[in-house]
Amino acid sequence: MVHRLIIAGMGNVGRDLIRLLASDREWTRLFKVVAVATGRHGVVVDEQGIDLHQLLGTVEAGRSLNQLGVAPAATTAPGADTMASSVPLSVPPPSTLDLIKQVPADILVELTPLSIADGRPAIDHIEAALRTGKHAVTANKGPVAWDYARLHALAEGAGRRFLFESAVMDGVPVFNLSRAALRGCRVVGFRGILNSTTNFILERLESGGTYDAAVAEAQRQGFAEADPTLDVDGWDAAAKVAALANVLMDARIDPMKVDRTGIRGVKAGDVAAAARRGGRLKLICAAERSGVAPEGGDAGVGPGAGTGTSGGGVITTVRPEFVPLSDPFALVSGTSSILTLKTDLLGDITVVENDPKVMQTAYGVLNDLLEIAGWGGR
Amino acid sequence: MVHRLIIAGMGNVGRDLIRLLASDREWTRLFKVVAVATGRHGVVVDEQGIDLHQLLGTVEAGRSLNQLGVAPAATTAPGADTMASSVPLSVPPPSTLDLIKQVPADILVELTPLSIADGRPAIDHIEAALRTGKHAVTANKGPVAWDYARLHALAEGAGRRFLFESAVMDGVPVFNLSRAALRGCRVVGFRGILNSTTNFILERLESGGTYDAAVAEAQRQGFAEADPTLDVDGWDAAAKVAALANVLMDARIDPMKVDRTGIRGVKAGDVAAAARRGGRLKLICAAERSGVAPEGGDAGVGPGAGTGTSGGGVITTVRPEFVPLSDPFALVSGTSSILTLKTDLLGDITVVENDPKVMQTAYGVLNDLLEIAGWGGR
Repeated sequence: MVHRLIIAGMGNVGRDLIRLLASDREWTRLFKVVAVATGRHGVVVDEQGIDLHQLLGTVEAGRSLNQLGVAPAATTAPGADTMASSVPLSVPPPSTLDLIKQVPADILVELTPLSIADGRPAIDHIEAALRTGKHAVTANKGPVAWDYARLHALAEGAGRRFLFESAVMDGVPVFNLSRAALRGCRVVGFRGILNSTTNFILERLESGGTYDAAVAEAQRQGFAEADPTLDVDGWDAAAKVAALANVLMDARIDPMKVDRTGIRGVKAGDVAAAARRGGRLKLICAAERSGVAPEGGDAGVGPGAGTGTSGGGVITTVRPEFVPLSDPFALVSGTSSILTLKTDLLGDITVVENDPKVMQTAYGVLNDLLEIAGWGGR
Repeated sequence: MVHRLIIAGMGNVGRDLIRLLASDREWTRLFKVVAVATGRHGVVVDEQGIDLHQLLGTVEAGRSLNQLGVAPAATTAPGADTMASSVPLSVPPPSTLDLIKQVPADILVELTPLSIADGRPAIDHIEAALRTGKHAVTANKGPVAWDYARLHALAEGAGRRFLFESAVMDGVPVFNLSRAALRGCRVVGFRGILNSTTNFILERLESGGTYDAAVAEAQRQGFAEADPTLDVDGWDAAAKVAALANVLMDARIDPMKVDRTGIRGVKAGDVAAAARRGGRLKLICAAERSGVAPEGGDAGVGPGAGTGTSGGGVITTVRPEFVPLSDPFALVSGTSSILTLKTDLLGDITVVENDPKVMQTAYGVLNDLLEIAGWGGR
């Protein structure tokens, strides 16, 4: 069976995914891309399968996808009557949401930009896919951070999958690890360094650089969020904490409920003092079940928090903490990240991602696609 | 469906597995133990399911299992005519191998002591199970280190599973991670600290202790092999390297083919010199595909090595290496362990096991059992 993909969004991750799907691997024949919708570069639909090299060339040249050949979409699609194979779209192209609802396909790949404030429009895209019989895969942390329980239930009810391996730690399989490799274990807490920009800024402060220069460099290297306040004030980290807590601990929280302190208040003197004490400041993401020796704040235990079937609330925090050099967390530098899962049966298990590249986020999406396709690997 | 288990071996891991199976969890009802065979404490068979609390009490008291009630086994079992429910065995009990062949069951759990020299009798037990329609799960690294390709093919041909998550890094799901969570990725190499005893001895030397005192302490704490030369000379590490290389890289090697240097030649002065250089000596386990910038020795590329479908030989090494304190490997202490998998699509991903307990090995066996039972977790 060839799985038909709709891809929403064609930024860096989308382009890397196309490169993976266009490569010569034993699994590439499992998929064909039947529609791509972008915010600023148009839309293309081809039920026979879009030529991926042509797609990539068009996107990289900054040209509109509306110029590519378009085959008839579902008959209910707006303007479908006027679509014919290899004829450019001559009518207003459908919205991304309409396209997801109306183009026959097996899997939506949701790669639109994150709205940290509410997870939309990604949530709407995923919901539309699940309600029209499609699986949904996203690299976007918003839907998992804001609306995991509802979307997961929607997928279960529809007999479809909602997967999001790339939402936290890029392609490192933290969710797959927990779901497929830690059967029977309960995750009772976690601790991680999950935001690259703040990690990078704290390191630059330690080596004598300035805050503004570090932000500028992180943006130049491409790993800072477009709005660096999302990193600096801990919002990106809080979204990842909410995503992990929702999926691994059934916490039913959202980023607003995370007890969040960013690094805006951290001064060069604080970093130097930590160094003198034999350690470093790191922005630590953490969660614990309340009642299990809670450390720190009490956010996340209000109404609506921690009412999952696992019982008990979950206390979630993001804040700068002193980490001694004898702790592996102190050695996580640059864009690397680390996550320790605390489990009931397996104790503590730590996963480290070393110097990731953008391709690794696309790989996480591919991993989800291969899971849906039932491709077992070696 | 209730899965009927035969358990061969009732040492520490077997006892912890019985404790897990006797606990009150949602998955415990998936299994019943219909036979247990031990080397020195007798045999018990009960097709109705052995009382696990009674079993544990008998084993912990050092009494023979032959005293427990025995229900009729397969009619072809030696002495089967004389077996009756709740009547002690009055005939010479069947051998472990006969019991595996003749007792109707779904899964063999192989927990007999490791023979590092050839992987037997565990290999024979697993083969007997697969040839009589049973799945096989083992915590024993021998069969995977010595005979993985053949046993895996045997299992595939029989439509049964051969699983061994606990063989390396206790219950940390290194094999599950690669199989279920890194779909489409190729492992192109690995690097790890996988033997606790040598790690512990090197640390004690660094803090001024003696070699002999460190070995004695490791034995007292229960993590040294019964014969410490298996640790000290790198045999345990070599078996783990062979197991990982066979499963993750299709290397088709055995422990004899690993380029192995233990820590017997390491002197206190060497450890002190490493400390002065700002690092530590660690016994490093590694593998690389030959042709991929090989570092170090050339063992493992002889006849029979690296002829798998992935193509190319695999160079495998175990040896003491200098590790700077800025490398997370330098911070792996005591019985903790670390493994970095080098992959083609996901770059380097590292897994750390922090201060494992014996229960974690039993958990790895349970994880395999839950996979066979199709128990998906949350």
